[in-house]
Amino acid sequence: MKPTVYWEDGCVVMLDQNLLPHEERYVSFRDWRDVAEAIRIMTVRGAPAIGVTAALGLALAARNIPDAGFDAAFREACDAFAATRPTAVNLFWAIEQMKGTAASSRGSERADALLREALRIADEDLQANRAMGRHGAALLEDGDGVLTHCNAGALATSGYGTALGVIRAAVEQGKRLSVFADETRPRLQGLRLTAWELMRDGIDVTVIPDNASGAVMRAGWIQAVVVGADRIAANGDTANKIGTYNVAVLARHHHIPFYVVAPLSTVDASLPNGRAIPIEQRDPAEVTHIDGHAVGPEGVPVFNPAFDVTPAELIAAIITERGVYRPPFGFHRRNNPC
Amino acid sequence: MKPTVYWEDGCVVMLDQNLLPHEERYVSFRDWRDVAEAIRIMTVRGAPAIGVTAALGLALAARNIPDAGFDAAFREACDAFAATRPTAVNLFWAIEQMKGTAASSRGSERADALLREALRIADEDLQANRAMGRHGAALLEDGDGVLTHCNAGALATSGYGTALGVIRAAVEQGKRLSVFADETRPRLQGLRLTAWELMRDGIDVTVIPDNASGAVMRAGWIQAVVVGADRIAANGDTANKIGTYNVAVLARHHHIPFYVVAPLSTVDASLPNGRAIPIEQRDPAEVTHIDGHAVGPEGVPVFNPAFDVTPAELIAAIITERGVYRPPFGFHRRNNPC
Repeated sequence: MKPTVYWEDGCVVMLDQNLLPHEERYVSFRDWRDVAEAIRIMTVRGAPAIGVTAALGLALAARNIPDAGFDAAFREACDAFAATRPTAVNLFWAIEQMKGTAASSRGSERADALLREALRIADEDLQANRAMGRHGAALLEDGDGVLTHCNAGALATSGYGTALGVIRAAVEQGKRLSVFADETRPRLQGLRLTAWELMRDGIDVTVIPDNASGAVMRAGWIQAVVVGADRIAANGDTANKIGTYNVAVLARHHHIPFYVVAPLSTVDASLPNGRAIPIEQRDPAEVTHIDGHAVGPEGVPVFNPAFDVTPAELIAAIITERGVYRPPFGFHRRNNPC
Repeated sequence: MKPTVYWEDGCVVMLDQNLLPHEERYVSFRDWRDVAEAIRIMTVRGAPAIGVTAALGLALAARNIPDAGFDAAFREACDAFAATRPTAVNLFWAIEQMKGTAASSRGSERADALLREALRIADEDLQANRAMGRHGAALLEDGDGVLTHCNAGALATSGYGTALGVIRAAVEQGKRLSVFADETRPRLQGLRLTAWELMRDGIDVTVIPDNASGAVMRAGWIQAVVVGADRIAANGDTANKIGTYNVAVLARHHHIPFYVVAPLSTVDASLPNGRAIPIEQRDPAEVTHIDGHAVGPEGVPVFNPAFDVTPAELIAAIITERGVYRPPFGFHRRNNPC
């Protein structure tokens, strides 16, 4: 499988995830504004992939901005990417990286330096996923049932995946896992993306309605939960796809370890805890309409937050590329993983 | 609004709930086999409504069976209704009531006696709902946020509703409630039916994805959970729509009282606890397909149980037509509500 998003012939190319699993279509963008729009409408999604896409989009912008007036035009592009989605901090992290590179280079060098930086961010994310896989795989045992929520896979990253990277690494080590994928309403990323990814890799996966996560835990089928993250506060509080908090509470009730898997670019050490994480509210039509036609009553009020926050006390470990962090988490300190 | 299911001119008439909320179409059946099929395909659903429908369907059967060979033919009809759906015990309870009436009447009297019994079951259910409403309303306070799951409303009963009956009664007493309705995947009865019912009555309702139930509890918006039931074991363990158990665990985590509202016909005192309650497994296509077209990858394995079991220890009270039962529940004893 080609990467989720990559650079080719002066274009940003990405797999259109809104068409999966039925159509595998790569779309190619020559204008950075179209890349920003692709993030907004979720052609590409997943916190690490959003960061990588924004970096590549800014490299694209830099190639097409004349040297005169570069600073203002580049800042406009940065602001446009920052306005696409508010919760995933990898987006803002990647934009800051690119701003730093832009500030330290000049003239004809600058566009090349920004492309190199974007490609480095993309490659670093892939390497981070492989490292998380190695660290996390040690926490899973042969024969385990593993529940995951949303898609924290190759599709959500430069490749391999965060939560699904841990599953892939464990399977590569010869462990037999049974994966249960929450379908993940309202956008059904578990059904559409996670199941598709794992089936392609020949990994045993069963989709369940989100409502069945308690039942499968109570049945004794789940030995670990692994999820990704969109933003982690200094104390370990973790924003991730809506419903992640439900799964964390259910895991605690059943004494099942709940693991968050994310690169350190997902940590926002400027926030002491999860209360200050901005939560994106999305269109009620994601809930009331399916394929453009109404399922619910006309005009029904809907609350449709894209994310929720799982407090650190429900998290058994946060698996990063540097290793496995155990509570109490303290990402504002320069602490080390266990 | 006309009742969900009723008798008219020698026919069983019911609102086709598969067409709601977009079309209000009543369908009329002259053959009992079509009534049984309507239960199976969920034209009518909700444990009390299923019981009432089976009783009316058996009254219909009785009218059309000649006196010679009545016993065998009536037994065949009873068996067919019993085979429609395995979990809701009101179905089996209603069949037993009708068998008793059939056994104690003869000849030309018999069909009339069975129709009278079916109409009595229907009316008794409506009266039970009103009584549950009165008992349960006392547990809700002015200004409360109330979460409900699936549809335990007028549509699930002879009228008024069990969980929604409690909400209606509290609102009739002048209490201002904010109702949050879980959309209730996979069949979306919360979005399609509960929101429709409450909006028609002018009761404040907001639909949420099932995944947001934890978030709204954590935000402090929910002061009580009310749900219906499909079967209650002697110790109070309660089978209800898949996802009810998730809500119960989340309510416990947030110290929010979790109330089950059901007529005593939902109690199966023959089962000491919930482990022996049969759980209906439904078609994976309910999860993978929407309006007949596939959303998930072809051939993806799916686990799609229609119900789960909430253990009695998570239930703050069971509200019946006789009053409010508090734990420890003991429906095998002739105990009385508080």
